[in-house]
Amino acid sequence: MADKFDFSLPFSVDFDFVTGLSVMGESTKRMLSRMKGMFCDAEAYENALAEGDRTVYEFYEPGCPEEAGQLAFGTSITYPGKVGAEYHMTKGHFHTILATAEVYYCLSGEGYMMMENPEGDVRVAKLRPGEALYVPERYAHRSINTGSTPLVTFFVFRGDAGHNYGTIETKGFRKLILEVDGKPAVVDNPNWRAEECHE
Amino acid sequence: MADKFDFSLPFSVDFDFVTGLSVMGESTKRMLSRMKGMFCDAEAYENALAEGDRTVYEFYEPGCPEEAGQLAFGTSITYPGKVGAEYHMTKGHFHTILATAEVYYCLSGEGYMMMENPEGDVRVAKLRPGEALYVPERYAHRSINTGSTPLVTFFVFRGDAGHNYGTIETKGFRKLILEVDGKPAVVDNPNWRAEECHE
Repeated sequence: MADKFDFSLPFSVDFDFVTGLSVMGESTKRMLSRMKGMFCDAEAYENALAEGDRTVYEFYEPGCPEEAGQLAFGTSITYPGKVGAEYHMTKGHFHTILATAEVYYCLSGEGYMMMENPEGDVRVAKLRPGEALYVPERYAHRSINTGSTPLVTFFVFRGDAGHNYGTIETKGFRKLILEVDGKPAVVDNPNWRAEECHE
Repeated sequence: MADKFDFSLPFSVDFDFVTGLSVMGESTKRMLSRMKGMFCDAEAYENALAEGDRTVYEFYEPGCPEEAGQLAFGTSITYPGKVGAEYHMTKGHFHTILATAEVYYCLSGEGYMMMENPEGDVRVAKLRPGEALYVPERYAHRSINTGSTPLVTFFVFRGDAGHNYGTIETKGFRKLILEVDGKPAVVDNPNWRAEECHE
């Protein structure tokens, strides 16, 4: 969608309340093959990929100028599924300008937002349709789909906030959400900081 | 809702997709009696008020700190109705920090966003459920309900943007949306800048 909209003038973009999909916009798809090292169980990841690539999540962003007066917005759609015991999730990121918040409004599906600040404070919030979640300044964030339908959120953040994916790709989050006894459980990431999980 | 939430930590707030109402939050109601001089037909306004006061619109804001890294968010609910031929609407405002955008995501109802910048460029955009509207930097904005059910939008803007209501209260918008032959029509505001409309 980059460069499609002129942010100096009003414009509208459709986002379906259930699927999160847009007719006017073009999404970015994050395939399983592009998430090597993100899921904790490396063997389960390779096995899943051997069965065929798939879309783990997709999102829209209408090409917002990287300026502090602008706002980037769109939907994020995380599809149901697991890699081993770990639920489908987004890669997760800090904002490059760390002290910038993000607002999420959950449209459909069910899941969690995993959040963590550089000092190691970890917060997990439920995402429920009809609830807005405030991700405060300085917290990395990752959407996790623990349900059986797409987890769809509408998001807004400052135009110049930027995405720092590298820190999470290298270090991971301190906590994971895994399926344990058929239910989501927050567990310590056994590979946090460890090389094995980030080959 | 001011001071109810700690914006330095994650928190959730519910907003109903149809009514826009929240259990967790407290709304601000804008009564007809508090909108003297905003509707163009002063006689119709006095007649409407004589029949009893009513809520023209209400909105939520969870007490966002006035800081550039924070985001204010909530729902705006404009109830159906007219004052003379003029549809119910919000007071409308510029942001105090003029060059800050606002994102609206229309949840239910039907209407328009009236927008105008200081140079007099006027833009009118339809608000439809399932469509996000980008109100760019420097544009004053007013929601107008031209339907028969509440017009509900979810909004996000920068925490320090601020509201300048005075300019619109004094000058009005250059255009109005009136019911003409049973349908909404954008017409010149005959009283724009004139004292009669802003007694």
